[in-house]
Amino acid sequence: MGTLETISEQRLHGGLQGFYRHHSQACAGAMRFAVYQPPQAARRRCPVLYFLAGLTCTEETATIKAGAQRLAAELGLVLVMPDTSPRGTGIAGATGDWEFGEGAGFYLDATGAPWSTHFRMASYVVDELPALIGAHFPVDTALSGICGHSMGGHGALTLALKNPGRYRSVSAFAPIVAPSQVPWGRKAFPRYLGDDQAAWADHDACELVRRQSFDGTILIDQGEADGFLEAQLKPELFDQACAEAGQPLLLRRHAGYDHSYWFIASFIDDHLRHHAAALGLL
Amino acid sequence: MGTLETISEQRLHGGLQGFYRHHSQACAGAMRFAVYQPPQAARRRCPVLYFLAGLTCTEETATIKAGAQRLAAELGLVLVMPDTSPRGTGIAGATGDWEFGEGAGFYLDATGAPWSTHFRMASYVVDELPALIGAHFPVDTALSGICGHSMGGHGALTLALKNPGRYRSVSAFAPIVAPSQVPWGRKAFPRYLGDDQAAWADHDACELVRRQSFDGTILIDQGEADGFLEAQLKPELFDQACAEAGQPLLLRRHAGYDHSYWFIASFIDDHLRHHAAALGLL
Repeated sequence: MGTLETISEQRLHGGLQGFYRHHSQACAGAMRFAVYQPPQAARRRCPVLYFLAGLTCTEETATIKAGAQRLAAELGLVLVMPDTSPRGTGIAGATGDWEFGEGAGFYLDATGAPWSTHFRMASYVVDELPALIGAHFPVDTALSGICGHSMGGHGALTLALKNPGRYRSVSAFAPIVAPSQVPWGRKAFPRYLGDDQAAWADHDACELVRRQSFDGTILIDQGEADGFLEAQLKPELFDQACAEAGQPLLLRRHAGYDHSYWFIASFIDDHLRHHAAALGLL
Repeated sequence: MGTLETISEQRLHGGLQGFYRHHSQACAGAMRFAVYQPPQAARRRCPVLYFLAGLTCTEETATIKAGAQRLAAELGLVLVMPDTSPRGTGIAGATGDWEFGEGAGFYLDATGAPWSTHFRMASYVVDELPALIGAHFPVDTALSGICGHSMGGHGALTLALKNPGRYRSVSAFAPIVAPSQVPWGRKAFPRYLGDDQAAWADHDACELVRRQSFDGTILIDQGEADGFLEAQLKPELFDQACAEAGQPLLLRRHAGYDHSYWFIASFIDDHLRHHAAALGLL
């Protein structure tokens, strides 16, 4: 498990916003994450929502910009926001490209050298981080939900679909739903996973949902003024895949909203309530 | 009046979050500010709340970190968040010190050379910016409130006290209430205003409130874990000055909260409601 280093802890909405660092076995290096503990966590173990951020982001981005803590404090929901990749890996080519490498881990376990040593965000988010959270924070690890934005939406959907029973609820903002078919995925997957596209399907929500449905309705919000909508996001592909697979999906399209955290902040409360209902808080 | 350049406009909580730039006569250079227009502003002129940020901040800080737009959208309140000083003045010594110069304008009109050419934030915030806002945005300029944090709390209190009738409501988070008596003010005021401390009193809330009370209750929130509390903020001095002057003051002290925007985000809704009530929205 290892030790946990507290970077900072500050009072927020009657609870505690903290930033932490630890040595990750999965990622073979130091990792940072943020945890918001609502006031209720001072008295009992609370359900937990993991929020996965998108390309270029860190553990600070959604923590500062999503505005999720206010309602989390009312509901009694712990929020965990990890970084988007390992950092300081020293691998040639791991920095300097916002679409690949550090800041762009795609929430998968890389299988190709040299990435497979550090870029194991799936094992980190699904196994190592929750064990650490359960050991150090007042959470009920049996009551977990997962949410994400863009690349983090891809992470939330694929990790929830690949790990039945691990998450009680899943939602996403403007997720990458078909990475095998869009430029972001077709750039990152060959380097992380190799050229065999059969391996990519294990990390593609549109493919995964045809194999294994999620037990509950998936909530997705998408802005119609999102500059990445047509080339990278293509929510209609997931809509179709869910329809064919019999997967309940609530896909909401919002006129005028773009890909930014202003969009997330506008609808984060709906997502928190979606998770809170599945986690027994409503 | 001059022209207004739109830097960005993005949908947020059914309204519009914008960033703008213009040439300021008062500050003799380009100035930036942020405006949030709630959904109601698409149909009618709305009351407006000015939020003044603290040392080191820009027009982006409170816009991104305070979380004020959610409730402003419900209430129908326009939010205007200016920068904290002129920028790019080229004056020797205007940059490189977080407590003085750029990012530290103290919301006054400097009288001493070389600062008096550009550092005229009082005229900017009280006169020039509201005229610009009234001309370009759907606001009812007769219905204005003012709020601020730390140095911006000093700005809100002093500008409201110095300009009777201009603001219907005033509030502050962790304000500098007695700059003449604390290190931040005693460092900045001699350079902006000269060595005659009689001139400083015109920019010191504790002095001003003894001359001219504000028509309404002043709301102040202060965190008790604020690292600047004892040396720089000293809210007890303003509490005493208000008591002696018969000025209604609601000073709330909050255990465990520090000087950060996490503190502001925790209580911003109370401030919005304070202003909304005075502005006829509640």
